[in-house]
Amino acid sequence: MSIVAVGSVAFDSIATPFGRVDDVLGGSATFFSLAASYFTQVRIVAVVGDDFTAEHEYVLKKRGVDTRGIERAKGKTFRWGGQYLDNPNEAKTNFTELNVFEKFQPQIPVEYMDSKFLFLGNIHPSLQAAVKLEMDKVRLTGGDTMNFWINGTRAELLDTLKLINVLLINDAEAKMLAGEHNLPRAANKVLAMGPQALVIKHGEYGATIFFREGAFGLGSHPFRAPALPIEEVKDPTGAGDSFAGGFMGYIASQEELNREVLKRALFYGGVMGSFAVERFGTERLQNLTREEIDARFQVFRELTHLE
Amino acid sequence: MSIVAVGSVAFDSIATPFGRVDDVLGGSATFFSLAASYFTQVRIVAVVGDDFTAEHEYVLKKRGVDTRGIERAKGKTFRWGGQYLDNPNEAKTNFTELNVFEKFQPQIPVEYMDSKFLFLGNIHPSLQAAVKLEMDKVRLTGGDTMNFWINGTRAELLDTLKLINVLLINDAEAKMLAGEHNLPRAANKVLAMGPQALVIKHGEYGATIFFREGAFGLGSHPFRAPALPIEEVKDPTGAGDSFAGGFMGYIASQEELNREVLKRALFYGGVMGSFAVERFGTERLQNLTREEIDARFQVFRELTHLE
Repeated sequence: MSIVAVGSVAFDSIATPFGRVDDVLGGSATFFSLAASYFTQVRIVAVVGDDFTAEHEYVLKKRGVDTRGIERAKGKTFRWGGQYLDNPNEAKTNFTELNVFEKFQPQIPVEYMDSKFLFLGNIHPSLQAAVKLEMDKVRLTGGDTMNFWINGTRAELLDTLKLINVLLINDAEAKMLAGEHNLPRAANKVLAMGPQALVIKHGEYGATIFFREGAFGLGSHPFRAPALPIEEVKDPTGAGDSFAGGFMGYIASQEELNREVLKRALFYGGVMGSFAVERFGTERLQNLTREEIDARFQVFRELTHLE
Repeated sequence: MSIVAVGSVAFDSIATPFGRVDDVLGGSATFFSLAASYFTQVRIVAVVGDDFTAEHEYVLKKRGVDTRGIERAKGKTFRWGGQYLDNPNEAKTNFTELNVFEKFQPQIPVEYMDSKFLFLGNIHPSLQAAVKLEMDKVRLTGGDTMNFWINGTRAELLDTLKLINVLLINDAEAKMLAGEHNLPRAANKVLAMGPQALVIKHGEYGATIFFREGAFGLGSHPFRAPALPIEEVKDPTGAGDSFAGGFMGYIASQEELNREVLKRALFYGGVMGSFAVERFGTERLQNLTREEIDARFQVFRELTHLE
């Protein structure tokens, strides 16, 4: 079933120990959409500027992504520059030019309104809430956020968390949101804010999904998916968004919504994140096959499965 | 089959957000021996001072640990004081009094010489090497080390690494030893120094075992065991040594030495580490049952296993 992805489209300039690229297509909605496109029909909602060409759009269209929700505004597309030269696990931002993204007001095309799945990328929590409230056919909403909104717009974020079924954030964000160092205690506090499930991404160590008691199945045992140790992390940009795309895309492709589906989705999230970092920008995500994805899923499985 | 454990016995003074204790029995060999004692016969080699009483020794004897290798020297036992008040994942050392441990020269009792398994705790690499060379019946040697030896006695450590079959260290130590940020690349460099297998401990994220091509089985795929998210980490002291005890103890209990055994051992390592942190000092490790251990092994398994 189709999923609507709301977020940013950007041009990224990135330096890593393996090289550098300038103004390559990126942004949370781009990585998410490409990753999810291997599992289900994706419908993107984003804003771009005059510098976004048909060639850029074709990167998404080629993967079957519905681009009718890309709004063209006067001005330049969001630009981000960063580097991972000192620490491969943490981006150092060189510059952020919000450009047309600064005034982004997500417009959901009427053709998208029957979608059953929704992913709210990292934008102002009030915009996230407005989209969710508008899309009343949605069965499951996933969402992302970041320290900027956790600190800066906490009240709005707390309102939005009541509308999100599965929140996907990293360790530092979970601890900051909960005001708690211990991960499972932080997870319980976040679940008490609204979501039925919380995915905490641990970067190179994988991810854990915590469930609210009784949500999507019995009990409240967490589940962990490992991440494959990767020798050549060419460019970590977009790994978290690609994780979200694999996770949500797999869920949207399934008939049932239960814990076993969410567990496998966690593995697929890790798989898509691991592909994303193998090349600069979205390059690897543009040229995959479902066979390659499922082969890596098996590798991830064998990575932690005992006989 | 029996395993000889060489390392420290100490009295620890520890403060955590859950309370504080003074002069409780600790030390790498103590945690290791107690953890391993649930799987196999353990023979400890360590040095203590006049302040080590029969009551202290009984903690080990009660678990069936052979204490004939505990040397009594004039003076006080090694003392360590630390706290985890700011960061539950990193000890801040308040004081270190080496005392009798400073001149520790491991003496292997003749009754221990038929042991087939050996664990060399974190002591001077030249002492580790001397023990290993003396014990010529050993089938498999595990070893630990730390930043102090990696930086201070690198040449001696590199010699010792040629004698160790399985090295158990944490992420920071592996990266420091290899001079390499990327974990799998660091692992390959360490394996090229001698060990057939390398266990890298990730704290709350579990551990990964890397194999040299062809060692203990086919191929060179790594394997990961998760760590259980624990809500009440009362005292992280000794978690790594308890991990090593569970890992090595399980291996020593098995007839075969192959990858499947090492993978299960990695899970048992995580299990024993998770018990250790639930109480201050060695309290939890003194009062377990094999049933409790195997029940938690199942929980760890379910934590990452798909149907």
